[in-house]
Amino acid sequence: MPDSHTIALDAMGGDFGPAAVVPAAALALKQQPGMKFIFVGDERRIKPLIQKERALAKASEIIHTDKVISSDEKPSAALRNGRQSSMRLAIDAVREGRAQGIVSAGNTGALMATAKLVLRCLPGIERPAIASVMPGMNGDTVMLDLGANVVCDEHMLVQFAVLGAVYARAVKGIENPTVGLLNVGTEDMKGNDQVRAAAAILSKVDFPGKFVGFVEGNDIPRGSVDVVVTDGFTGNVALKVAEGVGALASRFLKDALTSSLMALAGAALAQGALKRLKDRFDARGYNGGMFLGLDGICVKSHGSMDSYGFSRAILVASNLIKNGYNKRVAQEIEQIMGQEKKILETMTPVPAGDA
Amino acid sequence: MPDSHTIALDAMGGDFGPAAVVPAAALALKQQPGMKFIFVGDERRIKPLIQKERALAKASEIIHTDKVISSDEKPSAALRNGRQSSMRLAIDAVREGRAQGIVSAGNTGALMATAKLVLRCLPGIERPAIASVMPGMNGDTVMLDLGANVVCDEHMLVQFAVLGAVYARAVKGIENPTVGLLNVGTEDMKGNDQVRAAAAILSKVDFPGKFVGFVEGNDIPRGSVDVVVTDGFTGNVALKVAEGVGALASRFLKDALTSSLMALAGAALAQGALKRLKDRFDARGYNGGMFLGLDGICVKSHGSMDSYGFSRAILVASNLIKNGYNKRVAQEIEQIMGQEKKILETMTPVPAGDA
Repeated sequence: MPDSHTIALDAMGGDFGPAAVVPAAALALKQQPGMKFIFVGDERRIKPLIQKERALAKASEIIHTDKVISSDEKPSAALRNGRQSSMRLAIDAVREGRAQGIVSAGNTGALMATAKLVLRCLPGIERPAIASVMPGMNGDTVMLDLGANVVCDEHMLVQFAVLGAVYARAVKGIENPTVGLLNVGTEDMKGNDQVRAAAAILSKVDFPGKFVGFVEGNDIPRGSVDVVVTDGFTGNVALKVAEGVGALASRFLKDALTSSLMALAGAALAQGALKRLKDRFDARGYNGGMFLGLDGICVKSHGSMDSYGFSRAILVASNLIKNGYNKRVAQEIEQIMGQEKKILETMTPVPAGDA
Repeated sequence: MPDSHTIALDAMGGDFGPAAVVPAAALALKQQPGMKFIFVGDERRIKPLIQKERALAKASEIIHTDKVISSDEKPSAALRNGRQSSMRLAIDAVREGRAQGIVSAGNTGALMATAKLVLRCLPGIERPAIASVMPGMNGDTVMLDLGANVVCDEHMLVQFAVLGAVYARAVKGIENPTVGLLNVGTEDMKGNDQVRAAAAILSKVDFPGKFVGFVEGNDIPRGSVDVVVTDGFTGNVALKVAEGVGALASRFLKDALTSSLMALAGAALAQGALKRLKDRFDARGYNGGMFLGLDGICVKSHGSMDSYGFSRAILVASNLIKNGYNKRVAQEIEQIMGQEKKILETMTPVPAGDA
């Protein structure tokens, strides 16, 4: 029997609203039969699109609202004025147990603030983190935090390590995932106080993965470890640099292959290979920023995503639900907290280091 | 008349030592006639290589030493035990006025620690920063700090902005360079306390460039601004992510173009274009990490560089010297310090922001 779970969809978020979200749900349903959907938004725009897809129509219900949180609304304003918004009502559906997860392509700051307020954190987690999967030479890496917390102390970094490791184990099926802490070098004395203190704790606790110590920026595209842990400032910059260099490489390649008739002819011959190369770098396949650590599954789709890209984000949420991600985090974090307390009591202060 | 200045070369640093450094000097001399060199290292290995190049031999002298700082030596140990090392003696030559700049491909931490101790900072600069030029869609960007200072307060960030802007103006000839502060978003309330405080100061001081506010990670490969300022932790990660994604793209392209006979044939036809693409991403052309803010020009070459790559680092040092970089920094920083003091006296505290 296929897994049955319900995902609430903010149908109005992102650049395309229902025109991307409804077909995305139809695509996800083909991949994962048994899913159910609650579409939240303008019924007049959603309903006709759903009715085009018989299987989807059977698996869907609609919560109507006219209110939408705009992409430039401040998080605090969204909390105050957005109680009837499609985003908020979709998150409410998770809190009320009508859905097990929510996906939105709307305003990231508003989504995080609302999800935190409505769903709250899992016990033992101070702040949720944004995590995403990134492609690498030796396989994918999940990285967190990508921007939810610009300042992180060592305890938050330790919690992020648990959130990432449980993801790699529960969702990706890696029995003993490797976890690295992002730093400017791999020696013990490198980095700032937070990363050195977090490393000292992680090297002592028993958690659902193997802590390999510090990793560097190039270890992300290299795919050296299964999980890369960092603060939201560094993680956000790293993600955007990676996306930008990818775009630059693709642009330079296009320039080169259209620079002469010979190059154009070569590109025509190699077009199959070049198409596969493009697919390999296709950002849509990696769409779906997971808000980990909340008491409810919440996934952010990039605002510019088409229906294929948005369907990937739905499947990311579905995988977290199916694999009981939050239950497993709750178990692990309780264990870690006990250990961390003991370790901190016996730890000598970490010495200040060179750059 | 060609510019005449002397550069001290740590002939023993890097993976290849004199075998890369001496031919590099010969290459640089062809580009920049009138340069002089002091080679520091093992005379028995250096001299025969110099004698192969008549013009170089006339422009060179050798300071002999057997001592070398190894690539894994800690900075503190290098300071203690490295007084007769090729690296240290080359830096000493700058302090003594026998050379105007020094280039080394040796141990980065040891080079920074020794250069700081021997050359000291320019007045008004608290700590030197490592800066490098990075290729972008709309032109190159100089970014700093790339790892010398893992923790930076707002005053250091302001000083880095001056160091970067003077570089863009004096060396790249950009009259009014644009300067951005790296952050997780462009709105005023984004980021940590340091970047918000630095932005508040930079938006008020009159310095040799135009402060455009916050920029994000993808603005680096986009080339949105002439100068990107950040702390050494974020900058180091950003640089290594960029290098790593570049390597990943190049590897994926190679995989694609060797995946079938059709692809191979296409690649053969397009080989001229692909060669130009490779050159465009050639790390050697961007070699030369500038240690800015020191009272003497100091440039770090990547340890793996061949003679062409090392020659680029020599020319980076030469350009800083020729354009009177340090004198211009000294003038600008004095002005800024007066202004910053006045601004800080009148400033209201920056409000804490959302992530």
